[in-house]
Order: sequence, then C-alpha cells, then structure tokens
Amino acid sequence: MRFVALLCLALPLMHPAVGAAQNRRAAPQTPLQRQFAPAAERLISAATADSAAWNKLAELTDTYGHRFSGSAALEGAIDWIIERMRAEGLQNVRGEPVMVPRWIRGHERAELLAPRYARLPMLGLGGSIGTPEGGITADVLVVTSFDDLQAHAAEARGKIVLFDVPFTSYGATVRYRATGMNEAAKLGAVGVLLRSVGPFGIRTPHTGSMAPYDSTVTRIPAAAITMEDAAMLHRMQGRGQRITVRLEMEAHYLPDAPSRNVIGEIVGREKPDEIVVIGGHIDSWDVGTGAMDDAGGVVIAWEAVRLLHTLGLRPRRTVRVVGWTNEENGGRGGQGYRDAHRGELDKHVLAIESDGGVFRPVGFGFTGSDSARAVVRQIVGLLRSIGADSLLPQGGGADIGPIMALGVPGMAHVVDGTKYFWYHHTEGDNVDKLDPREVAQNVAAMAVMAYVVAELPAPLPRAPAPAPSR
Amino acid sequence: MRFVALLCLALPLMHPAVGAAQNRRAAPQTPLQRQFAPAAERLISAATADSAAWNKLAELTDTYGHRFSGSAALEGAIDWIIERMRAEGLQNVRGEPVMVPRWIRGHERAELLAPRYARLPMLGLGGSIGTPEGGITADVLVVTSFDDLQAHAAEARGKIVLFDVPFTSYGATVRYRATGMNEAAKLGAVGVLLRSVGPFGIRTPHTGSMAPYDSTVTRIPAAAITMEDAAMLHRMQGRGQRITVRLEMEAHYLPDAPSRNVIGEIVGREKPDEIVVIGGHIDSWDVGTGAMDDAGGVVIAWEAVRLLHTLGLRPRRTVRVVGWTNEENGGRGGQGYRDAHRGELDKHVLAIESDGGVFRPVGFGFTGSDSARAVVRQIVGLLRSIGADSLLPQGGGADIGPIMALGVPGMAHVVDGTKYFWYHHTEGDNVDKLDPREVAQNVAAMAVMAYVVAELPAPLPRAPAPAPSR
Repeated sequence: MRFVALLCLALPLMHPAVGAAQNRRAAPQTPLQRQFAPAAERLISAATADSAAWNKLAELTDTYGHRFSGSAALEGAIDWIIERMRAEGLQNVRGEPVMVPRWIRGHERAELLAPRYARLPMLGLGGSIGTPEGGITADVLVVTSFDDLQAHAAEARGKIVLFDVPFTSYGATVRYRATGMNEAAKLGAVGVLLRSVGPFGIRTPHTGSMAPYDSTVTRIPAAAITMEDAAMLHRMQGRGQRITVRLEMEAHYLPDAPSRNVIGEIVGREKPDEIVVIGGHIDSWDVGTGAMDDAGGVVIAWEAVRLLHTLGLRPRRTVRVVGWTNEENGGRGGQGYRDAHRGELDKHVLAIESDGGVFRPVGFGFTGSDSARAVVRQIVGLLRSIGADSLLPQGGGADIGPIMALGVPGMAHVVDGTKYFWYHHTEGDNVDKLDPREVAQNVAAMAVMAYVVAELPAPLPRAPAPAPSR
Repeated sequence: MRFVALLCLALPLMHPAVGAAQNRRAAPQTPLQRQFAPAAERLISAATADSAAWNKLAELTDTYGHRFSGSAALEGAIDWIIERMRAEGLQNVRGEPVMVPRWIRGHERAELLAPRYARLPMLGLGGSIGTPEGGITADVLVVTSFDDLQAHAAEARGKIVLFDVPFTSYGATVRYRATGMNEAAKLGAVGVLLRSVGPFGIRTPHTGSMAPYDSTVTRIPAAAITMEDAAMLHRMQGRGQRITVRLEMEAHYLPDAPSRNVIGEIVGREKPDEIVVIGGHIDSWDVGTGAMDDAGGVVIAWEAVRLLHTLGLRPRRTVRVVGWTNEENGGRGGQGYRDAHRGELDKHVLAIESDGGVFRPVGFGFTGSDSARAVVRQIVGLLRSIGADSLLPQGGGADIGPIMALGVPGMAHVVDGTKYFWYHHTEGDNVDKLDPREVAQNVAAMAVMAYVVAELPAPLPRAPAPAPSR
C-alpha cells in the first residue's frame, strides 16, 4: 500500500479501534440474510477448514520473494498464478499487459561519520535520485515537522535534513516521506533522511514512495533510516554535537518494463457480463516478501473464487479476481485495468480491494449509494461468526480508485491493523507474521461478500453518475 | 548476557510470570523495615524524580555505540565513566587491568542460491572460525533438534546444517547456539546455521557466543539467520526443494587485548574494608548499542552509588560499583576481579549483578544462607511501592559467579523480561526500548538494597564455606 491509498480512500481500512461489537447488537435476520445464510455458512466452514490460503501465500512468497515492478520475480509470480488458476479450473485466466516504471535501488549506504562512526541501516525512498558517485557528505539538521524546518530555514542550506517525526498515524506521518525532499530542497538542503514511518521497529528501515519531485527545485536524494537512529541523531543535536553523515545511493530509473494484471474468473451463470471484481496487488516493494503488502490480498481473493468453484457455488454474475501490478510505485495496474475495461465498467457491480494486510478480519468499508449500503450492511451481518461484520463509512483502494472515479461502487476489506505498520515496506513483511486461521477467515469474508453481491437478484444500486473525470 | 549466565545461575532473573503481587499480602513492618523505611523512601523518591539514569545511559550508548571486547569504543566508554565518576565525587575511581580475547567478525554474508536467490540477514556466532576465502557453498539440511539431527545423520555429510528450533525459553534454545557446530561437525557437516535465539523479530539476526570447539572434530563456521528465513528454508525442505546456501565469514581471533574493570566507590564510614559490590558488564556484543545488555546494568548501579553520595547517605560499609569487562565472550572481567581481590573476598558482604535489562523492576534473586535470606526478604519489602519486592530463590550472574564460587553471597537484579529476548544481541538493543521511569525505578531498587545491606549493624551472615574450587 502506498501513501496515496491511505490519504485518498482507505483511512478507515485498518483502524485498530474498529471492532465488530457495535454491529452485533442489532441483528434480526432480514429476508436477504435468511436467504443467504446457508451459502455463507458453507463458505465460512469450507474456508476455515484448513490452512490452504496461508500455505498458498507461503509458497508464493517463499518461491518468488519480493515482486518489485520490473523484476523477473514479479513476472515469475504472475506466470505461477496463471498456471495455478488454470489448473484449479478458474475461467478466462490471463495476464493483461501493463507497462510499469522500473526504479532501481542499486547499492546504497548511510554512515554516521561524526560525532562517531556508525553504519545507519537505511532504505532509499522509492523514486529518489541517486547521489553522485562516492556519495554526499554533509552535516545534519534534525527537524520534527515542516514548521520546525521553516523555523530553522537559515540552517538548512548545504545540510542533510532529517525529519524525525514520531509515528502518530500513517496519514499524519507519511507526508514527510511524500514531500520532505521538496520542502528541504527549497531551503538549499542537499539530501533528506526520514525517520521510518512506523510505530515500532527493531532497527528496521521502511521504504515507500515519494511524491513526484517538484520541478521548480533541485532534486535531492532521500532515504529512510531507523526510528532508533533518528532519535539518536536528534539527541546528539540536542547535546550540541555536530552530526555528519555520508549518504551513497545508486538509485535510478530504467525504461518502463512490461508487466501484467493477472486475472481469473468464475463466469456468472445468468449475467456473465455483470462483474464483481475482487483482488489486491501482486507487486511489492523490493524488500521482505510482500506477504501482507499485498500477496495476502491477492491470495484471499483468489482463494475466495477457487472456493466458489470447488463448492459449485456459481453465482448469477461473474466474480473476477484481479492481482493488480505496480500499485506500490506507479499505480499503473489500476490505471491499466480501467483503460482495458472502460467499455464494461457500467457492468461492474462492485470492486473490492484488500490492501491492509490479512490479519484478523473486521469487515468492509463501502463507498457507494445509500441503497447499496443498506444491502451491503445486511451482507456483512452474515460474517458475524468470524467477527467481520463491521461496515465502515468509506471504502476503496489505490488499484480500484481509477474505476471508482468512473462510478464503480468500491469496497475496502478491513482488518485489525494494529501491527501492520510494524512490518510495512520492510524486510520483515513475511508470511510468518500472519496467522493461518485469520488468513482463512479473510478468505471467508471475501467469498461471502463477493458471492452474495454476485448472486443478488438485481445489481447493487449505483450512486448517481459522477461528473466525468477523464 | 551470554548463555553461561542463564544456564548456571540466573534462570529466574527475568521470568515474565514473576510479579510482585505474591509478596504484597504479608507485609507487617519488621523492626528492620521500620528502621530503614525513611532512607528507602528518600532514595526511591530521589531516584524517580527525574530521568537522570536514562539520560546517562543514552549519552553513554549514543557516544560510544557498541563496546565489544578489544575495541576502542569499549576503552573509550571506560575512560568516560572514570572521568564522570571522578567529577561526581565518587571515591577510589579506577580501571583495573584485564586482558580480554579479541574476536573479529569481519565481513560476513549469507546467500540463498537455490531454490531462488536471496540475501539472508545473518550474524556470525561469537568465537566462530571464518570460511575459506570465497566462502563455502553447500546444500542445507534443516533439523529441529539434536535428536532430529541424529535421525538424519546420514544426510549431514558435506551439508550446512540449519537448526530451526523455535524459541521456547532461552535456556532450552540457546544450547543449539552453544554446541550446534560440534554436533553437526561430528556428522561431517561443513557449516552450521542457527535460527536466531529469540521469540520475535523483524528479520532480525541475533549473535552470541558458542561453547568452545570440540577439539576432536573439525572446526566449522557457524552463524545465526533470522527466524523468518529459518522457517522459510524449513518449508522449502518440506516441499522437497533442494536448498543451497553460500556462507562467507572472515571471523578470526587477534591476540588478547588490554581492557579494564571500571570501579568507583562510596567508602564506608565505619567498616571501609567490608564491601557491597554492585554492577553489570560494560562490554557488549558488536551490534546495536548494548543498552540493555548491559550498559543499563552498569548505569543503574552507578547511579545508585551517585545517589548515596549526593544525598549524603554514606553507609557503614563500602559500596563499590563495578563495570565488568568481557562478560559476553570470555568472562575475563569476572575472573580478573576475583583474582585481583582474592585477598578481600572474605570481606565481600554481598555481590549484586544486573544483566537482564533495565525494564520494569520485579525484585532480586538471592543465593546465600537462610539467615541472610531472612534479612534480604525484609529489604525487598521496602521496595513495594515500585513493585520490586519479589525475592526469588536463586541469584547470581556471569560476572559475580567467580567470587560466588569462593563464598560471596550473590544476588541478581530481576526485571520483567517479556521483551528482553526480542532485542538481545541484535542491532535493536538500543536505549529507545527502555522507559526512563522504569530505569529510574531500577536505580531505586539497587540503591535501597545496596544501602541497607551496607548499613546493617552486622554483615549478612554467610553460608558455610564451600569446598575450594580453584
């Protein structure tokens, strides 16, 4: 998940305080719930009977590791998914071509030279330029906010500016990752370091995208260091010590590379052209194995469709699983899906994205018409036994954002996000952090939501058409 | 803290289940408690009035970083402590010479070559030999125990054996770090990898000492990898995949180097030759900053003595703070202290070691005579307000072990150890993980225990003299 997702659409997607309790009181069975309870129970029971989803996620992430846009691992993973989906009997399995940006991290290194020598574990920020060969060596100015930077504007020239901003929420903190380099460059800084965006670490740097460079100022390199080291440099500044850092980065872009959105379907038995899209993004950052960000999102959607197929629950409409490519550093998969399917978006009944990890399920967030919300609220009620019966006021995701902008109702899969940002965009995003039982419950939640929406007698009612955006 | 400490002496030192509650019920004030309550309250109040101890710990660890035996940083930190102690007015401040082993990690790297390429974050184990230049490349055999290794004895020859032993307790798991290389070498293995010893990580390798190489088998190199990667290799083996790893280590020993035990005192007003020794070890592993292992132990003892001095609480006997050197990979500091003070050990009334982190205090563990225990039990009762009123059945530590073996009553400072092994011997052992208030409470606990024992009318009664051990 990149910052755009959370800033624009999905803030409630992982709110730790969101529990299912609020919805559990008022639970009379509506006709819809009575109609779909047997199918829901069958799906929940089948999904949670084993660890198939966790095992699939482990095999995918063990076998291909991280899957950065432009990498052979990403394309290998997509090939593997296509082959597996076909073997499972999914329909219309294919990869849809998308050109993706190709940012190369290269060798990188940060060293504290004064007041003492230390290696600073670091990760360059996605999209950053590199340093000149041999790196840059400069004194450090530590600031705690953009206001603090302005208050010390006269001291920034020629310095490496370190934003030591303790984590409050992702949205509040990630903006320093997004535009810190532009704000520092305006004052003549030669580089930017960022306290990694996360509430906890074990000397763990977090990477992630920056916003585009401001074309009116000098481009400067930017990297994240650990929260421990950021705090230490801050203390050193507080003691009046001169802090010198050497930063070396080979980061650069290569020409765009071919990739694919990976797609499989269970074709609707009555209205095959009406579509419920569910999925996550198959690309990841170039660290860890991207198990929670976001192979897990792809796998739970995929397993949901496989379950429908295995159980012979072919709904009225088509359910399409999509593994979007290049969510992390470009969003080209979501844009490409929109462009390739522009002609059938009117028939897209719902798009559900999972991109907040596959921890304990909480429910869904929905953005659409009030009448659709009334239906969706009844469907989440079917997920009470697995605690996934919360309906949040907004939903979406970076990959479905482009089609939501054209009127497709959007939904975010919502989980307990308490620890998501411990691992987000780090070497520690691994399948071990995920619980097989919780992953299975997420499959169940996705399967029930997709099935019922695809089986309803009438499509989910849409909101009035928005003004054309493109 | 190295494995010897826990295996031999200090197992109860950080038991997470140990709370103070059990002791809180029976708390009538004894005459001893009534006598010392005012001094105890004064010390607790002064210790917890500010963050002086945490700040000192931060300055020490920020300024010198890790302090491995034989390093300039260790000697620099010792010089700094000596200078600071003198400036504070402590008495008889000095460094007592000790020769320490000098193990050099050098460049090291582990790579998974098959079934796919990946860097495996790793730390060579202390005392390991290096690999031949260019490293060793071999297939991997994953085992889960020494029994499992024996069951696959025929497959070990020519392999790198990975011990994937999930953490249960430190004592139960660390034995694979201690002797895994010997057991694997007996079967013809060419190297050993170890799942890092700890209950949780964010792709965090943990180093630590091995036992001596078995002189009857070939020496093979040994390194720890992360728990995530160990589990992944284990899954790969379960899938029938051939796993190949390249391991490259420059590890080697240089000749022993000079170091020092660092010492300061508040000299007793009546019986200056009777001594209460308190302290921790000033050396650390060559990763992180050794803030909890064990600069924190040194600092709380030091701050305890400084508080006595500042408050004018000069007790009957001498209180001596010692920062032992080379606990982690040799134990030479503890041995050197014994040898340098052999003539005055009869007058060592008590030795207290803190080497389990300076998290929330729980109390003390004590090894000594029953009559001494009855006194000590009353003293911990004075620490009820800070929750440090548990008295565990055994105490000690690696540094005071040598003098305990000669009859000195020994005590371990005990804290809540829930998270200690998240950070132990990793890059994440940093002051940020410690809470200033809890550090201050540990100063209070150490100050009260040391003061009261040093002020009692008669020395703590000793157990009958043990058989001479050396």
